[in-house]
Parts: sequence; C-alpha cells; structure tokens
Amino acid sequence: MGYETLNEQTAAEYVQSKTSLFPKGADLDCREIGDGNLNMVFRVWQKDAAKQSVIIKQSLPHARIDESIVAPLERARIESEMLVLHDTHCPGLAPKIFDYDREMYAIIMEDLSDHVVLRKGLIAGTVYPKLGEHLGIFLARSLFFTSDLGMDPLKKKELQKSFVNPDLCKITEDLVFSNPYFNAENNKIDPEIRERAERNWRDALLKREVAKLKEKFMTQGQALVHGDLHTGSVFVTQDSTKAFDPEFAFYGPMGFDVGAIIGNLVLNHAAQVWHKQDLSDRKKFQGYLLETIREIWRVFDKEFRNLWNEHVHTPLESAPEYRDDYMKRLLSDSIGYAGCKMTRRIVGLAQVEDIRSIKDVNVRRDAQIAVLDTAREFILHREQLTSIDDVLEVIQKFAMP
Amino acid sequence: MGYETLNEQTAAEYVQSKTSLFPKGADLDCREIGDGNLNMVFRVWQKDAAKQSVIIKQSLPHARIDESIVAPLERARIESEMLVLHDTHCPGLAPKIFDYDREMYAIIMEDLSDHVVLRKGLIAGTVYPKLGEHLGIFLARSLFFTSDLGMDPLKKKELQKSFVNPDLCKITEDLVFSNPYFNAENNKIDPEIRERAERNWRDALLKREVAKLKEKFMTQGQALVHGDLHTGSVFVTQDSTKAFDPEFAFYGPMGFDVGAIIGNLVLNHAAQVWHKQDLSDRKKFQGYLLETIREIWRVFDKEFRNLWNEHVHTPLESAPEYRDDYMKRLLSDSIGYAGCKMTRRIVGLAQVEDIRSIKDVNVRRDAQIAVLDTAREFILHREQLTSIDDVLEVIQKFAMP
Repeated sequence: MGYETLNEQTAAEYVQSKTSLFPKGADLDCREIGDGNLNMVFRVWQKDAAKQSVIIKQSLPHARIDESIVAPLERARIESEMLVLHDTHCPGLAPKIFDYDREMYAIIMEDLSDHVVLRKGLIAGTVYPKLGEHLGIFLARSLFFTSDLGMDPLKKKELQKSFVNPDLCKITEDLVFSNPYFNAENNKIDPEIRERAERNWRDALLKREVAKLKEKFMTQGQALVHGDLHTGSVFVTQDSTKAFDPEFAFYGPMGFDVGAIIGNLVLNHAAQVWHKQDLSDRKKFQGYLLETIREIWRVFDKEFRNLWNEHVHTPLESAPEYRDDYMKRLLSDSIGYAGCKMTRRIVGLAQVEDIRSIKDVNVRRDAQIAVLDTAREFILHREQLTSIDDVLEVIQKFAMP
Repeated sequence: MGYETLNEQTAAEYVQSKTSLFPKGADLDCREIGDGNLNMVFRVWQKDAAKQSVIIKQSLPHARIDESIVAPLERARIESEMLVLHDTHCPGLAPKIFDYDREMYAIIMEDLSDHVVLRKGLIAGTVYPKLGEHLGIFLARSLFFTSDLGMDPLKKKELQKSFVNPDLCKITEDLVFSNPYFNAENNKIDPEIRERAERNWRDALLKREVAKLKEKFMTQGQALVHGDLHTGSVFVTQDSTKAFDPEFAFYGPMGFDVGAIIGNLVLNHAAQVWHKQDLSDRKKFQGYLLETIREIWRVFDKEFRNLWNEHVHTPLESAPEYRDDYMKRLLSDSIGYAGCKMTRRIVGLAQVEDIRSIKDVNVRRDAQIAVLDTAREFILHREQLTSIDDVLEVIQKFAMP
C-alpha cells in the first residue's frame, strides 16, 4: 500500500474502506477544509443524512510551503498516537478516533464542526459552565495514566521512547523559555512595553527561575503531555470540551499542560478590560474566568488523588505523605509554567488574539504589563503559592481596575 | 556476517581481523577469563612480547544459566556504547576502546589486568592517592558532556532514546528504592539489626523522601549516567582509575552516579572498624576516605563549573546564578542517592563485602546501624547539607568511635 496523498475524490472512498461509519453504497460528499500547512483536513458527510459526518486528517510528507521542514511525518505519527491515547484515557474530552492508519498518516475522527475554538469563545465573552470541570478531568486522566503512577513503568519507558519529539520541543525551548528573556531577533515587543520587557532581561532571579523551569521541561519525563494546551487547542460548546492538536506531545512535566491552560485564561482575563467595556459585565466575566481556573485545579487535584488512591498500591508510592507532596509540587510547577506561557505571549514571536485585538494602545499596554507582572510573581513565588486561592489573589492583585 | 559466539580458537583471529594492535602473523594466545553469566571475556596476548595484550568482551545472546533472561543483547549494546562514550569524554579514566562491533556485540578494549577492583583495594586498606581527583574528573566530564549543557539538546534527545534501559532500571527501582523500605521477600536483614531496619519502614518522612528520589530516578533525564558506579565498578592502581561495567547506563539524574561512589566510600569507612584493627591506622585510613570524598566533590564541582564556563553560552544557562543553583541541587541529589545506596547495601538483596566480611557480629551490627543512621540523615537533610564539609560532619557524627 504505502503513503498516498488523499484528495476530495479519494477521501470518501478511503473512509468507506477503513470504517463502517456510513452504510455501504451511501452517497458521500467531501470537502477539504484544512487551513494548515502540514495537514490535509477533509470533511466527509452523507448527503441524504446531513448529520452523519467525519473528519479525515492526513499529514503531508512535507510542508505545503516549504518542503525542507523537518520530520513532518514523525510529528504526524506523534499527533495521531496522542489523539488515540487521549480518546482512550479521556473519552468525550478529545475527538473520538475511528481509525488511525500508520502508513497513510491519516486519522479518521469525530467531526467537531458544531464546536468553536475556546479562545474565540472567550474573546466573545461566552461562558462555558462545564469548562473547568472538563479540563480538570482531561488533565488528571491524560497525565495520570501516562505517568509511572498510572501505568507499568517498563511500558512507560517504551512509550516515552516513541514520543521523543526533539524538533517541536526545540520550538518550545526557544520560544517559551529562552527568547523572551533576552533581545532575541524574533521577539515581538510593542514599543509601549519595551522598557518593561527589558526589565525582565536584567532580572537575574527571574531568569534563574525560568532556566530551572526550562531545565525541568527538557529533562523531566513525568507524563505524556499535550505540550501546547492553550485555549486555541480546545474546542467547546455549552456542554462539551475537546482538546485537540497535540503535535507537541512528549514526555515532560505535568505542570506544563496545567500551566498552559491557566496561563491562557489569565491572558484572556487581562484582555477583558477591552473586550467587555461595561464594568459590571466585565467583572462578572472575569469572575467566571477566575472561577474556571479555581475549578480546573480543584477538579484536577480531586480526580488525580482519586486515581492515585484507586490505582497506586506500591508501598512507597501509596503513602499519603508522598501523594500530598507530589500534588504540592504539581501546583508550583503549573504556576511557574503558566507564568512562562503568559510572558511569551506578550513579548515573544507567537502572540494571542485576546491581547493583539485590543485596539487602544494604552489599554493594551496596561493589560500587557499586568500580564508580565503577574507572570513574574507566578514564576518567582510558585513554591510559596500553596493553594489555588493564593494563585487567584496574585491575578487580582495585578489586574487592571 | 551476523552474530557468532567467539571461543578461545576464534577470538585471536577476530582481534587480528578487527584491529592492527598486533603485527600481522603474530603468534597470539587466548584465554577465556570471564566469570559472569552474560558475557564471554577473552584475554588475547602476543606470546613473544608478553606485555602486549587486549580484552574482548562479547555479550551472549542469552544468559549462560537462564536463557529466558530478558534482552541481554540490548543490555550489551548499551554497555558497549556507554564504554565508547566514556572513552571519548574521559580518556584515561575508562578502558580504552579499540573496536566495537554492533553485529557481534563484541568490544575490543584495553587489558586492565594490572589493576585491582577498588572495593578489594579499600577493604585491604590501600591508599590510592589520585582516586578522588580521577573520579571527580570522570563524573564531571561523563555527566556534563551527555547533558543539555554539554551537547546539542536535539542530539541529546536521540541519545536518550537509544539508552532507554527499562529492565535494568527496574532492578534499581526495586532493589535500591522500594524493597529496603518495606518487608520485601528478597531483603537480607541480619537479625541483630532487624529492629533498626523496621524502624525505617515506619518512618513516613524518610519514605516520602526516598519516594521523591525514586521518582527523580525514574523521570529526570539529566545526563547519561553509569547507573551502577559503586566501588566494585572501578579498577585502580596507585596512579590509574578506570570506571567499567556500565550496563545500567541510562538517562537519569547526575547525582545518582556521584552518590553511588560516595555512598560506597561511606560503607567502607564504617567497615574499617573491623578491617583496620589498630585505632591509629584506622583513623588514618578513615581520614583518607573522608579526604577522598571531599576531593571527589571538590574536583567534580570545579571541573563541572569549568566545563560550564567554557561550553555554555546561551543567555539563560550561562548565568552564574543558575549555575550556582544547579551545583547546589547536584550536591543535594548526590547526598540523597548516597543515602539510598548505603541503606540498600545493609538491608537489601545485594550487599557489600566491606560489611559482610566483618566476622564479629556485634561490630558488624554497630557498623550497619552507623550506616543506616548516616543514610537517614543524608536522605532527610540533603537540602540543608550545602557543602561537602557538612556531609563529612554527618559521616563523622554517626561513625563508631
């Protein structure tokens, strides 16, 4: 068989050959809907039964714009295998996977066209009442079941080997950890916050702590992390939450995923000073965001401890003293990584629409500085912030009135 | 070609075909000198020039006594490739490698018959004046050059992948970290210290700290560690030191190697109360052991910092604040792992001749308890011991008079 690029003509036939989702001989239609550079994304649906549809995501053997881009197929394998694992460990919280084809680098999965990207929803000021609970469960289960706590350590080492992801880790090492802390060529720093950004470059203590977090990112194979779990990697509706796009997956520190999502909620919280112009509306929505952060941690902590109590029976690891210490370290790590993710979205190459879409320069500057100040406090004091309430206090302390 | 087990007839010919160590047509003799279960070890020498000789170590495709033993060839590859790296990074401090044959799992290396095993030498009370300096350099260079500090992080991740070593890591996880802290079937506990051993099993704080050290062992891919660097894995003469037998090599915490060697020196220190019966002789030799521990750390710290200053130029990692913090954490880790290694040698399955050869039951008991007490203090207070002098004080505090 081997690899072959799908097109709108062959994709429907491909789905029929790999799955029994549609009746034999069904009249199928197909559209390529991808806007990425490394994947083809097809939507296939049954013409006479409009609700039945699936997505095929196929990785290209080279980038559309640049054939020299390294290892896209390996990245595709990692993304596909991570999606399969998320579907296994967190059913309902990631796209359902119907088929994964190692030769075609193609994955047939649930069509989530009825969902919106969380970042867009939050910028629009939409409340998702189950978001915190869902994310807490997703984080707890995806991380626990790929760690030495939730799986056989022998198998975990083999799994870790198959998720070594050097090229995408390097992107994170550079863009999240290194570049924001010196005058890197690809930083994007608005002139209004140049002075504040440069203050970080002279902050030896801050840089030391970021270096330690970077070191942990590069060395601690604690669990199979999503690796890029910002609010642009989550699809939502009022009662559904699905994490997707795990191409950065690798064995890293659990706190990196928890921190990514918390950090992006803090970015949205800061941006609401522009997006919700009415003060009372804004306070209400910001209150919802803070409650969501609280709920993510509360549910994560509770579910992780439940899984621990249910699955860990080895003499050393079942001790509550160890479990409590572990959870405390997870909170510190998460807050530290939240701080790193926030800073890079203000001064680094890849910024976020929440902040970038603030049209008033002064408002944007104040929001950016609030984020940088919060991030610094997160990073420096992460070991003193021993409860999620402590964390929320820091956010409120630096928030614009 | 493929794999073929060597014998005394074929080994000499094999050396001639792979190297130009001996003249063409030289009259060679060969003897199988291995006593292990997983390898054939041949000594090959030139009859008419007695000093010229080499060792061939070939891994068997199965264990001699039990064909079901898992993955001996994979273990052999790991040992061979680690030996090659040690020879590269630490020339003179590991056996010189003349050839490594991936198909035959055979390595042709320097003959160290003129050396003795360090453990034997220390039990006999021999002083090796350069030991501390050599081990300090070996540790610094072997660890630095396989870490993200001393090599390209992209290449390091690939190297880490090729040194995933689940079966041998599991042996350490069980025998060093888990079993000594509960009533494991394969523990070996002398009746005279049973009560003291059981006290550790009720020590929740001690077990929590051991669990954290075990977690770090299982997750922190900091450098390519030897993995079993006790005094039985080091050959010495008065002016030569060679680390060998790195079959447990994997990406783990640097402190595991530093702690292994320090812990085994502390075991020997405790055992001297029997081996050196004359008090003044004993104090002198114990003083030498303490000086060696000090020297290992002093040289390791100095060499590691020198390598850092010479090779690390990235903005975050070149900062002295980060480097100092890193070295402080390395000392804590090392002391914690020393404590784990000491405890397991007193109550675990694999004990050490230093202690086992103490014939007087009361003396042995007192030495064993001194080791367990020192180990506990190491593990619990490893973060407060911020200089090697602090460490030596703890050893002396618990040492028998």
